This record gives sequence, structure tokens and C-alpha cells, in this order.
Amino acid sequence: MKYIWVVLGFLMTANFARADEGMWLFNQPPREILRERYQFDATDEWLEHLQKASVRFNSGGSGSFISEDGLLISNHHVGADALQKLSTHEKNYVRDGFHAHSLAEEVKCLDLELNVLQSIEDVTARVNAAIPKDADASKAFLARRKIIAEIEKESLDKTGLRSDVITLWQGGAYHLYRYKRYTDVRLVFAPQQQIAFYGGDPDNFEFPRFDLDICIFRAYENGKPARVSNYLKVSRSGPRDGDLVFVSGNPGHTSRLLTVAELKNVRDQRLPMTLEVLYRREVLLGTWSERGEENARRAREMLFGVQNSRKANIGRLAGLLDPELMGTKEKGEEDFRAQFAAKKETDAVFPPALEAYDRIADATKILSGQVVPYALLEGGLAFNCDSFRIARTLLRAGEERPKPNGERLREFVDSSKASLELALFSEKPIYTDLEILTLSDSLTYLATKMGAEDPLVKKILAGKSPRERAVELIHDTKVRDVPFRKELYNGGWNAVVAAHDPMIELAQLVDPEARALRKVAEEQDEVKQEAHAAIARARNVLLGTSGYPDATFTLRLAFGTVKGYEEDKKWIAPFTTLAGLYQRAKEMNNRPPFDLPEIWVKRKSRVDLKTPFNFVSTPDIIGGNSGSPVVNRAGEFVGIIFDGNLQSLPWDYVYSDKQGRSISVDSAAIVEALDRVYDAREIAAEMASGRRKQASD
Amino acid sequence: MKYIWVVLGFLMTANFARADEGMWLFNQPPREILRERYQFDATDEWLEHLQKASVRFNSGGSGSFISEDGLLISNHHVGADALQKLSTHEKNYVRDGFHAHSLAEEVKCLDLELNVLQSIEDVTARVNAAIPKDADASKAFLARRKIIAEIEKESLDKTGLRSDVITLWQGGAYHLYRYKRYTDVRLVFAPQQQIAFYGGDPDNFEFPRFDLDICIFRAYENGKPARVSNYLKVSRSGPRDGDLVFVSGNPGHTSRLLTVAELKNVRDQRLPMTLEVLYRREVLLGTWSERGEENARRAREMLFGVQNSRKANIGRLAGLLDPELMGTKEKGEEDFRAQFAAKKETDAVFPPALEAYDRIADATKILSGQVVPYALLEGGLAFNCDSFRIARTLLRAGEERPKPNGERLREFVDSSKASLELALFSEKPIYTDLEILTLSDSLTYLATKMGAEDPLVKKILAGKSPRERAVELIHDTKVRDVPFRKELYNGGWNAVVAAHDPMIELAQLVDPEARALRKVAEEQDEVKQEAHAAIARARNVLLGTSGYPDATFTLRLAFGTVKGYEEDKKWIAPFTTLAGLYQRAKEMNNRPPFDLPEIWVKRKSRVDLKTPFNFVSTPDIIGGNSGSPVVNRAGEFVGIIFDGNLQSLPWDYVYSDKQGRSISVDSAAIVEALDRVYDAREIAAEMASGRRKQASD
Repeated sequence: MKYIWVVLGFLMTANFARADEGMWLFNQPPREILRERYQFDATDEWLEHLQKASVRFNSGGSGSFISEDGLLISNHHVGADALQKLSTHEKNYVRDGFHAHSLAEEVKCLDLELNVLQSIEDVTARVNAAIPKDADASKAFLARRKIIAEIEKESLDKTGLRSDVITLWQGGAYHLYRYKRYTDVRLVFAPQQQIAFYGGDPDNFEFPRFDLDICIFRAYENGKPARVSNYLKVSRSGPRDGDLVFVSGNPGHTSRLLTVAELKNVRDQRLPMTLEVLYRREVLLGTWSERGEENARRAREMLFGVQNSRKANIGRLAGLLDPELMGTKEKGEEDFRAQFAAKKETDAVFPPALEAYDRIADATKILSGQVVPYALLEGGLAFNCDSFRIARTLLRAGEERPKPNGERLREFVDSSKASLELALFSEKPIYTDLEILTLSDSLTYLATKMGAEDPLVKKILAGKSPRERAVELIHDTKVRDVPFRKELYNGGWNAVVAAHDPMIELAQLVDPEARALRKVAEEQDEVKQEAHAAIARARNVLLGTSGYPDATFTLRLAFGTVKGYEEDKKWIAPFTTLAGLYQRAKEMNNRPPFDLPEIWVKRKSRVDLKTPFNFVSTPDIIGGNSGSPVVNRAGEFVGIIFDGNLQSLPWDYVYSDKQGRSISVDSAAIVEALDRVYDAREIAAEMASGRRKQASD
Repeated sequence: MKYIWVVLGFLMTANFARADEGMWLFNQPPREILRERYQFDATDEWLEHLQKASVRFNSGGSGSFISEDGLLISNHHVGADALQKLSTHEKNYVRDGFHAHSLAEEVKCLDLELNVLQSIEDVTARVNAAIPKDADASKAFLARRKIIAEIEKESLDKTGLRSDVITLWQGGAYHLYRYKRYTDVRLVFAPQQQIAFYGGDPDNFEFPRFDLDICIFRAYENGKPARVSNYLKVSRSGPRDGDLVFVSGNPGHTSRLLTVAELKNVRDQRLPMTLEVLYRREVLLGTWSERGEENARRAREMLFGVQNSRKANIGRLAGLLDPELMGTKEKGEEDFRAQFAAKKETDAVFPPALEAYDRIADATKILSGQVVPYALLEGGLAFNCDSFRIARTLLRAGEERPKPNGERLREFVDSSKASLELALFSEKPIYTDLEILTLSDSLTYLATKMGAEDPLVKKILAGKSPRERAVELIHDTKVRDVPFRKELYNGGWNAVVAAHDPMIELAQLVDPEARALRKVAEEQDEVKQEAHAAIARARNVLLGTSGYPDATFTLRLAFGTVKGYEEDKKWIAPFTTLAGLYQRAKEMNNRPPFDLPEIWVKRKSRVDLKTPFNFVSTPDIIGGNSGSPVVNRAGEFVGIIFDGNLQSLPWDYVYSDKQGRSISVDSAAIVEALDRVYDAREIAAEMASGRRKQASD
């Protein structure tokens, strides 16, 4: 099999043959590589155990069970969304942290959904068989949407499990993922954000690093701690330099299989526009936060998200503007096409694959022509506030739900109903002043992007300035009232229309144009999917079906070793220690964000300063992997992923372990902090034994 | 004359008749209005004294003499450019302030040029006579450039004074301004930035306000304090509520006479692009500053400038997106055109004025089509660093200086030579790391705006990533070395080319395209100037020649009264006090930027807390007026302009004193602070007596 990897490596990435590349499907694990390179046998049991101990946070992260009583761990910055929703002016969970000393003290999170993957089934043949021969893109899209909704509904009815058909290889394959859902999730422990995100934005994506980026929850069922048979045993000592480690988590999105035409569009249009919006929001939220502490508290998580994306996207753009990276991509594609061309007489699979590149380029061009209005109107950039998002969901639910399941917009199919309702009826706080701030800014952005004279813009602004219009809309809408939402959702279309809610009416005003843009986007995505599938088929004839698809926020297995790297001719050691934390605070004069929480200053003499704190390793991860467990050969939890370094940011397009590294909190530091800093001995004990001590409640 | 103002008010702005509108020319002062509305007689002596006591900071602000020994006062944020250039890691003038206890301790500023207006001469007839009949825009532009350079050179040779021909009324008139230049300017006193800019960006453009935004210098001639016959007497008590006050300063730029087509272009294209760049730079410099205190120190002034512009431009855009403001503009223009149309048979001046609107709209469209490449290549947005600006100046000086004076690019004419050389040979510090930061970012911006595949972009990046290219250019150029600059400047074109300096070669690579864009811009500006002049002529026939032109960073007189205003149904009193400062710090928990310098805490018991600190008044000002003296009827200095409130930001397009106000530091607070907080008694004494006490040196 070695040859395949060499060829594939040459075609896809620079160092695939030797590098620890890959976000592997759990049903197509890299057994050969692990055996040959690491003499490791990934048995079915080992894989199943890890799969079922892994948890997906529907809000956008990963985690894992660490006790049979449903205890689970993720990152602070994954849990922060839940912490923020629980926080008030009086009780700031994000800033101050939290520690439940008993089950009774554990706090139920709002609208948090966890998913645990139970099974994967390949449904590619069934999906493709449902597309009529010679259907145009529009018909093919509708047929594909219908069959996917049908498969999902059938599975949900049969198993009661959340059932999602996942599009892999950009349309080369379709797999049905079934998940157990947990919606009663309670907060057990969170450190202060100051130590969880020590070094703040300046140190984000950097290494060496000193972050206790953890948050501990417990899954409940029927009001009691969930009993889980698959959980990870927490290692007291963490990993060692050179150890083989695995990461099991949900990488959100990569673009490694995009064609050069698509990548250039990402480089020249998508990323610049994304960054334009992020810069704008960062300044908006940053200046608002500076005007008072309560402002800062309310905007905290939003601002963190913006800053985090800004830094990540700058790194991605830098990658795509690096002629070496783009050159590799161009060379790879040329070679691929040359091979297809050389064999086009020998197999009918090659000619369509050759044409596919042009079809993708054409679709990309059409999509690029409507990127701006799409992002504004369908993407909602023009109406950036929770009130609008809720209003649109109510409006569209009223229209979509009476339709047959297979003909609805994707987000309203039966199999997504439970998750949709969980989010829609959330009691999370929505702040009027913050809504006005973000809505006036985004209406201003709309007016400048589409022009203040645009007829739709004029209708949206209704003869008012963006600020005036935002004030009026936010004050007059009732969608922030949850019973009102339920009334309209249950009352259906007639109730929605009869309410004459101004925000819903705004959504309605925009909807014809938004839906038209979406229709074009869906059709062109269908064109691209079919073209990518043609390329995938040709590649499979050439190379076999091995390899891994781009990330899709579904469970993947990555592997690699704990390993330092060279930067500016200096060796960066793979581990930091707790001593390094105190050292860094001193060097930076304890100036925020390099100051320490009081308790860390007070307890310094108690902790073992030699404890390893953060470490880097080579497994292939990306955003969405945050909170993923890092496990050793024995399947023990030795750390938790929370970041990649700056050099890992171009991994979106090409993996390289020359300098790119994932960054984790060492399990040794987690136990040490719980035990010696936070006096959270009962949690440390539950981690050590894998079960809750019953007496303590 | 009353009628004229009513009509003009209706046509130009909403409340011109009763409002204290106007940035008046010193040679066309609003004598009638002052007499009728305020029973004030603006005599020639009164005006000449104020004119000659007023100082322009060439770096972009205003100020005034306050002693016969050349003592002068401006804002801290005007002086900050000079403070920053003097500062090092060891001595931070911006943060820590400065106090010279004797002449010997006064510190010479780098490349700071002050201008004092000596005379104004109307040269409109001579300029227009030099334009051949029926010349096209290109020929007309060249002829106009030639005659202007000729007038300036002749005046410089005759008087030795800096001589600038100023284009007024968008081309309706040309006046020759003659200035005395001071280039030996020494720092006498600066407070800490913390109190000068108390409340920082959050409180910028807000009121109530508590800023000691002052900086005191002394002008020298022949190594000795300059003897000046016109200086302002500083009032110990400041103004009172309702007092008539005047502002004499240099408003930088307004757009009140722009046509609706031009305003819409500003709204839909220029301001959005400016803001896009500002948001980007704010994040770039902000995040860099957070990485360390020395970074923060180096980027401080640049970051302040960016934040200040961002807030101002958001306010301007909000003004233009307000349908009421734009509606007034549209109505005004329609009425004007209707009147022109009604009279087109009676006077030959009206038909060209009517056509002028379309010519302006056409020119605006052509200019708008090249705004992006113009800003990037000729405006230098793509190469944002001092090294590039110096390199281009050296390159162009080599090309331009051998040409006849009248045929050179504007900035290389003989009358500007002294100022150009002062700036070019400045020893101000340039930081390699900051240069790399801003250059890589702006090269990235270039690649995203013009596309990474653009042939010129490819040549500029030379096969490297923006970051790599920036590192190489900044490290390899020698232009940061002042003797090298002098050698190339004096050596002329051959020396410039022979140097093979990579940054100069970059400037050379870009220059053909940059000059081509500039040529189009100059021609279209000529078209617009001629069209605006036609409108001005028609307006003069209709209304007489009274009124004031848009701001041009030349000396203007504004007037108004000290007066509070209503905001959100609350009355905002016109004065704050020192007591209010301490109160604000307490309310904001002394959290930066609301913390007080130590000395202000320590000296609290010494100061009279009832002292008025900042006040608002109605005179018509705009950016560039910073540091302008506020004087009373007696011509005494009663305060210093340092800001306008948020509601004044749309003054760029329309003045309104409904809520818009200028903000000043009260002279009483200045004297109190110097005397009781800073123990700067000798400065306070010099202000009080109008002369320096000789014994103290």
C-alpha cells in the first residue's frame, strides 16, 4: 500500500507519505499506516470504545466522557457559550468560573445539545440511485434533498437516534451517521477565563502556551447522571515526548480537496470578505466593551469568537498567498489532470473527471457573482442580531413545515426538528442594547455594500437611518419573548402572518430575494458536488478508495506524536510547565491578559511547578476539534486539544508537520489544578476512579 | 442683507439664517451677521491681531501665541506627533508628559513646521486668464498648475514667505496665502496623555468631558525665543454660559458644497472604503500593541490617529445615511437648479451652471471607477510604511526637480521645497518591526483588492508571500538612513537609479501606473473645478458673493456662543468641572482609560474643584481646528478647541447647532492645572503677563 500514499502525497500535499496527516473516518481508519509506521494495531474494540467515548458539542466543539457517571470534559472556550448564557450581571460564570460541590449544585445549561456517534452506514448507492439520469442541476438537487430527508426520517423513526446523512469527498460518498443525543447537560466545573484563556488574543494560536482551557460537564438522562459504558480513563501523568497519540473529535471544515479555481476564489474573495466583516465587528464590539464592564461582559463571547476567527483567517489567507503552497496545489492538480488525460481512452471514468474541473470553475464563478448579496440577505450579515435569526426561523418554519418532509429547506426536515426546537425555544438572555448595536452596524454595512439607493435596501430601511431603523425594530419586535415564539411556531403560517411583528415582516420582505439567492447557490453546489464526485471516482480508479475526505464536523480519528519544532532557528520544546506560567506572568509585569487569577497566586506554593501544562503534537486537527481528547495507545485520556499554532493555520488547505502543531492541555496539569488549586478533590477522584463517589451526595 | 442669508440658508443648509454657521475667510469676515446678531464690530485691527496670533501646525492642527516671547499653545493630540518623534524606550514623552523649567531645558522638535498667516491676496483673475479658451481638461489642468506655481514662486522670491495659492469654492476663486514659517520649535510643557486624553477612545467625541488636551511650545528664531507682536492674553477665568466666542483656526476639509452626486459617491464608496481600511488598521495596530509595552509605545500615535478617524468617519457616514440630511441636500440642489433653469434666458451665466451638475456627475463616475487602484498605488495604501514614502519621494524628486517649476508635480514646486526637505530629512525614529508589520498587512490588502493574479501585483510581490516580501524590502532598503537620503536627493536622478535600493525600485515599478491614475484624477478634478466655478458664478449672480467656502486647511474665523444642548430629553450643561473629573474616575472604578495620573490623585486637595474644565459652544469647526484658540469679544484666550461632539460629525456636510457642539478646554483649568497640579508657575506667570520672566534663566 505504500505506493498509493506516495502518489497521493505527491498529488495532494507535500509530505503525505511520511507526515502524520489525516482526519480519518472511523469506518475507514488508517490501520496500515499505524501498523507500519507505529506498530500499532487499531482493533475494532479500541476504535469503538474511543468513538463512543467521544462527544460532539452541537454548538461547535468536541469533548469526551471521563466517568461512567456521565462526567465529560471539553474546553473552556467550547463551554463558554453555555457559561455566557447562564451568566447575569450578578453572577459571571465566564469570568469567575464555577465549581459544583455536589450533584445538587450542578447547573443545567440552556439549549446545549451533545451528540455521541453510535454507527455509520454507507448510503452512497441509495442516494445516487435516486437521482434521475440526465437531470439538470436544479432537478438533481431536489431529488438528492428528497432522498436524503427520506433516509434520515426512516432512520430516526426506526432507531430514535439523531440521523444525519453526511456528504463526504465533496459528493463522492454519502454516509448515514446516527447519534445518541443528550440535552440535559449540567455544568460541574469551570476555571476562571483568565487562566483558561491565559495570554488572551495576543497568545492565541501561539506556543509556548499556558492555558487551563477546560470545562467539565455531566450528561443527565431522566433527571439522573447518565450511565455511559464508554468513557476514557484519565492519565495522572500525561504523555511523554515522542509518544504516539490519537485525537478523536469533530474537525469542522477543511478545504484540501478544493480545486485550484475554488482555492483562488477563497483567496481573492471569500477570505477577504470574511476578514472585512471580522475587522469591523472586532472594532464594534471592542469599543462597545470599553465603554463599561457590563457591556464587556455581555459582548465577551461574541468578541472572543470574532478575534479567534480573525486570527485564524489571517493565517489561512497568508497560507493561500504563499506562492509555495499555491504552487504545490497547482502542480498537484496539473499532474492529476495529466494522468486523467493520459488514461481517458482506457476507462469511461476519466473523461467526465477531466471536464469536472471546468464545471467546478464555472460554478465557482456563478457563486462568486452573488457572494455579496447571498452573505448579506441569505447569510444574514445584513441583520446581525438574535431577534432577526429567531424571526426568520419562525417565518420559514411557518412556510416549510406544511410541506412534505423531502421538499423542505434542509434545516426544517423532521430529523432536525428536535435540535431546531431546542435552539428556538432557548431562554438564553438577549440584550436589547447589544442587539441595537449589532443591527445598526449591519444595516449600515448592508447600505454600503449594496448602495443606499438600492430599492430593496430602501425598503429595508423604510425611510430611516440604519440606527433609527434598528432601534425601532428591536424595540417593537416581540420575538425575544419565548412564549410568543412557541405561540407562533405552533400556530403555523397564519399565526405568523397575523402577528404583524415588525422583525418577522422584515424577514418576510427579504425572503423572496434571499430564497432566490439560496436556490442558485444550492444548484451550483449540486453542480460542484457532481463534478467532485466524478473526480473522486477517477481518483479511486487510479489510487484505490483509501484516504480521508475533507472535514465535515463529524467524528474523525487523527494520529501523531508529541514533538517540538524549530522556529526562527530556535528549538521549541514540546512541553510547558506550571513554573513557566508563573514565569510568563512575571515577564509581562502581570499586565492583562498576562495576569493570574488570585487563587493561582495564593496556591503557588501548593502546586508542583514541574507539572507539564501544555504540549504540542502532530495530529491533524482544525477548528471544531477544540475539546477533543488526546489518547495514548492504551486509549487513556492524556490531554485535551484546545488550539493549533500559527503555523498550523494553513492546514485548512494543506497539512504539514514541519512546524504546524496542535496544542493540548496536559492531563497531569488538569488533575493538579483540580486537586491543588481549586480543591476540587471529588472531581479529581471521579476522574481517577472512573466513577462518582456516591457517599458525597 | 438679511434676505441673502435666508435664501442661502434654504438652499444650502437647514438653519443657516439663525445658526452660528460658517468657517469664514479672514478677508471676507461675517461683519454684518456679527453686528446684527451680536452687536459686535469686527474691526480690521481686531481681525489682524487674531490672524497673526494664530498658528498652523503643518502636521495637521492649529494653535496660538500666548506670549510675546513666542510661547504658544495647541492640543496634546496635535503636539503628540512631535512628542512621539522625541520619545524612546527610555523616555516616553507621550505617556509621561514633560516640563521644561528653563529655556535650557526646552527640547527641539523634529521636523515640526509652524505657519503664521501674514496676508491674503485674491489672484482668481490672474489664474483664470492663464487658461486658454476651449482648452480640454488635460491642457487646462497643466496651464492652471503652471500659473499657480508661477504665482507662488514669484511671491516666495519677492517676500521670502511661504506662498500657497489656495483653491476656494471648489474652483470658484484662488487666493494667495503668505505665511511666516517657524521651524525651530521647542517643547515647553506637556501633561501625561492619560489626562490629556482622559477617557480615551470611549469618551472621544463625547460630552460631558474631562480632558486637559494641551501642549505648550515655544517658537525660536536664530536660536532665541521668537519675538512676536501678536499674541493672545490668557484669561484666568474662561468664558461664561451664553458668551459670544470666536474660533480662529485651520479647519481641514469639509464637503458642504459637493453636489448630490458627489455626496452619494462619498456615502456609497469613499467612506466605506476608508472605514474598511481603518477597521483593518485598528485591529492590526491594536493586537500588535497588546503583545508588549514597547510595541504599544511605538504604535501609540498611529493607533490614536486610526481610532480618531474611525469614530469621525462612522459619524460622517451615519450623517449621509440619514435620509433627512440627504433629503435636505437633494431639495436644496433641486431648488437651485430650478432657479438656474428659470433664469437661463436672462443671463449667460446660468446655462453652464445647469450643465455643470452633469459634468460633475460624469467626472465623479470616472473617478469612482479608479478609486481602488488610485488609493492603493498613488495613495500608497498598498505600501503603508515610512520607508516606501521616503523611497517614492526620492524617486520622484529625482524626476521632477530638473523640470521647469510650473510643470512639476504639485509637491515638488519651488515654493514647497523648504517644507518638503524638512520632512524628508527628518531624524524621527522609524521602527523596522513596525514597518514590516504595516507593509506586510498592506501588501496583503493589495493582493486581496486587486487579486493575487494581477500582473502588477505579481511583479510587486516578486514570487514571495506578502510577509516575506515585506521582510526583505524593509531589511534591504537603506532609505531609513538620513545621510543616504541626502546623497540621493542631492545626487538627482542618476544617483537614485545607481543606488539600486529595493524600496526605490519598488516605487519605480509602480510609478508608471500610479502616475497614469494620478493624471486621470487631476484631469477629472479640473473638470469638477471648472464646473463648480460655473455653479459658483451663477450662485453669485443670484445671491451675491457673500458666504464661506469649504474648508481647505487654511485660517478661518468661526463664531458662536457657549451653550448646552438637549440629548435624549436631558439637558447637557455647557461646562464640566475638575470635581467632575474625580467623580468620573470614581464611577468608572479607575479602570483604564478612566484612571487618573498619580499626580492628579496626590494634588486633589490643592486644586479648586469648582474650576470649569471643559465646555461646549456652537462655533463651526472641523478636524484641523484642533488646538484653535477660543477668544472672547476682547480677543482674550478663554479656551482651546480639542474636539466636537458626536452630533457635530455630520458638520462635514451640513452644519446644525441643534445638538452639534465644539468642545474646548477652559483657560481657567489650564492655568489651575499648571499652577496647582504641575507646579509650572513660571509658565502660568508667562501666560498671565504675556512675557517671560528673564531672571529665571
